[in-house]
Amino acid sequence: MRDFSKDHRWLSINTATVRKQWSLDRIINECAQREIRAISPWRDQVAAVGLQKVARQLQDTGIELSGYCRGGFFPAADAAGRQAALDDNRRAIDEAKTLNAPCVVLVVGALPGALDGKPYYTDIARARAEVRDGIAASLDYAREVGMPLAIEPLHPMQAAERACINTLEHALDICDELDPEQSGMLGVAADIYHIWWDPKLEQQIARAGKKRLLAYHVCDWLTPTRDLLNDRGMMGDGVVELKKARQWMEDAGFSGYSEVEIFSENWWNKPGEEVLDTCIQRHCKVV
Amino acid sequence: MRDFSKDHRWLSINTATVRKQWSLDRIINECAQREIRAISPWRDQVAAVGLQKVARQLQDTGIELSGYCRGGFFPAADAAGRQAALDDNRRAIDEAKTLNAPCVVLVVGALPGALDGKPYYTDIARARAEVRDGIAASLDYAREVGMPLAIEPLHPMQAAERACINTLEHALDICDELDPEQSGMLGVAADIYHIWWDPKLEQQIARAGKKRLLAYHVCDWLTPTRDLLNDRGMMGDGVVELKKARQWMEDAGFSGYSEVEIFSENWWNKPGEEVLDTCIQRHCKVV
Repeated sequence: MRDFSKDHRWLSINTATVRKQWSLDRIINECAQREIRAISPWRDQVAAVGLQKVARQLQDTGIELSGYCRGGFFPAADAAGRQAALDDNRRAIDEAKTLNAPCVVLVVGALPGALDGKPYYTDIARARAEVRDGIAASLDYAREVGMPLAIEPLHPMQAAERACINTLEHALDICDELDPEQSGMLGVAADIYHIWWDPKLEQQIARAGKKRLLAYHVCDWLTPTRDLLNDRGMMGDGVVELKKARQWMEDAGFSGYSEVEIFSENWWNKPGEEVLDTCIQRHCKVV
Repeated sequence: MRDFSKDHRWLSINTATVRKQWSLDRIINECAQREIRAISPWRDQVAAVGLQKVARQLQDTGIELSGYCRGGFFPAADAAGRQAALDDNRRAIDEAKTLNAPCVVLVVGALPGALDGKPYYTDIARARAEVRDGIAASLDYAREVGMPLAIEPLHPMQAAERACINTLEHALDICDELDPEQSGMLGVAADIYHIWWDPKLEQQIARAGKKRLLAYHVCDWLTPTRDLLNDRGMMGDGVVELKKARQWMEDAGFSGYSEVEIFSENWWNKPGEEVLDTCIQRHCKVV
């Protein structure tokens, strides 16, 4: 396993981690000052600064992407909604190309309308079928332009609203169905927050292998967890066995960044400098 | 599938549902008045009234049990703690016998100390091994006295603190290991709140079959869910496909009660009469 204790060359910052403190251009500069080599930005953060401006800034600072957040949200109430989702995913893929991202991370969506508390239907099998079809359609375009898609299984507590793919096993079943040749164009984003609890985690990481493991996200699971969305922990503050998980990832062939993605009211309320410095410290110590 | 629309003869009330309104003796009387035929009481509620008194009251009212809550919490910081857990499970089994319960429901436990925010260790594989060993030891006694044990997979969001068995598949793997002959003495309590999201739900219910399906708990998953523990929904208020799930249960051979178990600050703050009447109404309409 790579030694992370000496430096943070394999640290990436998912820019949601400091989204409430800074705009993306500031985040990029703060990361560059700390010799953080990679980020994973969100589309709304990119749009707020301007796509071309962000692309230039990345070139100027030499910072690369460990992923682009995010595509997905395929299910919809009607055909027009599903087509709008496909169009939007196409734009996300184009933006990812412009930013030279290694993959577009897919938060696949779930029951349409559930995020607003008004699910249009409750048939989760239907949502899963729409997700499958949406990934299949987006994959055609992704192959055309050469931009890999990474399905991110979300924690089952987000199955109704955000993603009805909730285990690595399910995500990999879809990969095997839609990309049996393991082309490298379809894989998974393994976010340990969402999947740490899974008794089949080691087995499914091994199954995924190098070709399917497109991204690795880290944070920690707090006890107690007080909110279903915005109470993620800093690495080392919770119960996730981060070194064990990274060992499994590396044993399976993954050699990319450990991307810190913390949605947390707690950390959003601290100075951005403190958050980034803590990410570096914990990356070296516990990831 | 049985027709629930005409009466509520297959309704059971898990007594946690109205635990903040009434003591258990009142709950039993209120259920009897409404011709509710079964309950599933918690040990602390039984202890507060007195075991023998509860047993007599059940006989007098003719109300039977659909389960006894609960055994489990096997992992501990040391051998003395694990032995204390086994002793406690033995007492739970004895109480269940006295009350003529069909099974003891096991909330198996997880990282010792995590429930108090201070996990003694974070090795979830170790917790799972201690759970397996604890069930195996308890099963010896359960067989001796003839009291089935029902492993309840809890939602993955409760994996750190309450139960490190989080899928039907995992629970059934343990059943197959410890009770390969399918004696009827080890099975699962399928609580739809915890497992509704699972893409393998239908498959694993079918796998379980009549011999392993010892209890069926219902409520609903709200969007949004505002609390990881006490924000369960009344059946019909959320996104769980209850009729579909019951069809799968019955196809697999289950013909027992649908036990309503609602942990909810919202429903605990309503009059108990309203809660029970709503349970009856929704049982007939949507379960």
